[in-house]
Amino acid sequence: MELLEKKILECGELRDGGILKVDSFLNHQIDIELMIEIGKEFAKLFADKKVNKILTIEASGIAIASITAQFFGNVPVVFAKKTESLNLSGDVYSTDIHSYTKNKDYTARIDKKYINENDRVLIIDDFLANGEAAMGLMRLVKMAGAEVSGVGICIEKAFQRGGNLIRENGTSLHSLAIVDVKEDGSISFLRK
Amino acid sequence: MELLEKKILECGELRDGGILKVDSFLNHQIDIELMIEIGKEFAKLFADKKVNKILTIEASGIAIASITAQFFGNVPVVFAKKTESLNLSGDVYSTDIHSYTKNKDYTARIDKKYINENDRVLIIDDFLANGEAAMGLMRLVKMAGAEVSGVGICIEKAFQRGGNLIRENGTSLHSLAIVDVKEDGSISFLRK
Repeated sequence: MELLEKKILECGELRDGGILKVDSFLNHQIDIELMIEIGKEFAKLFADKKVNKILTIEASGIAIASITAQFFGNVPVVFAKKTESLNLSGDVYSTDIHSYTKNKDYTARIDKKYINENDRVLIIDDFLANGEAAMGLMRLVKMAGAEVSGVGICIEKAFQRGGNLIRENGTSLHSLAIVDVKEDGSISFLRK
Repeated sequence: MELLEKKILECGELRDGGILKVDSFLNHQIDIELMIEIGKEFAKLFADKKVNKILTIEASGIAIASITAQFFGNVPVVFAKKTESLNLSGDVYSTDIHSYTKNKDYTARIDKKYINENDRVLIIDDFLANGEAAMGLMRLVKMAGAEVSGVGICIEKAFQRGGNLIRENGTSLHSLAIVDVKEDGSISFLRK
């Protein structure tokens, strides 16, 4: 998606350890106009999937998922929780996920009431690096007996393995920008 | 807002300690159609405020703020972070906030780049109870030298003090549903 690639080149900052900082438009400040274009793009890419629910994980995925849902006929969004909460009942699907960014494990949870075997679930997230979060969300959907209709990612890191793991697995994955790093340390993009 | 009141009566669950569980449509699963109506309502209520930025706090506020921003001409949304993150630079405004729900303190942070003295900021959140989060966000806006144009809340708890504290302070506060609890333990609504 050219608009997103352009935004990454203009505003993204590549840091040590392959960290791409996009907090001016994606995960701290949110560029709503860009989110709308991202939502339209996901709706085109997954148009044939009969998506009836969107699943993401707190926190940065929520804005993307909520705006995107409008282009899928206002389907409900569920966001997996990373912390225990009084607002969650005990009856949850849960799975452990490793965060390389934060260098720790956390447990992702969804209340069993909100995903069931009739659901065709589109998983949406901001980043795909090692694939831990996306594969964790896929496990939650499968625990619920629901179908993973696809995985929609804003920014995939070509130099980490998540994208390949999910594609090899046969899942319909679309990443709107696939970032690679050239030898001189600058950003380039792949198309898959 | 009648639609929200109706939804609370239909789907909300009042728990011990004044906890109102609305995770079927607001803070775990998100009813996007309802969020759109909420966004339109905030746009009407704060129409004269020349809002150019929306501030919320992770996680549940993000969906409401992002959808609402569309009805303010796609102004940017900033969400305050509750945890230290590699994605935040060190140059932040920060303030400590007490969470009665989770019974602990946390630090809310925003990168100094994303709010400045030219901003007229609408603060949006899902709940207003003791007012700790809303007043913390107001402090962050003031630290940045920006103007608090108003505070837009989905659900205010009439039996906790936050609403009165913020109104006494002269801030433009609109809560779309103000929940009270009758002697028999059932929910009623106030209009302010």
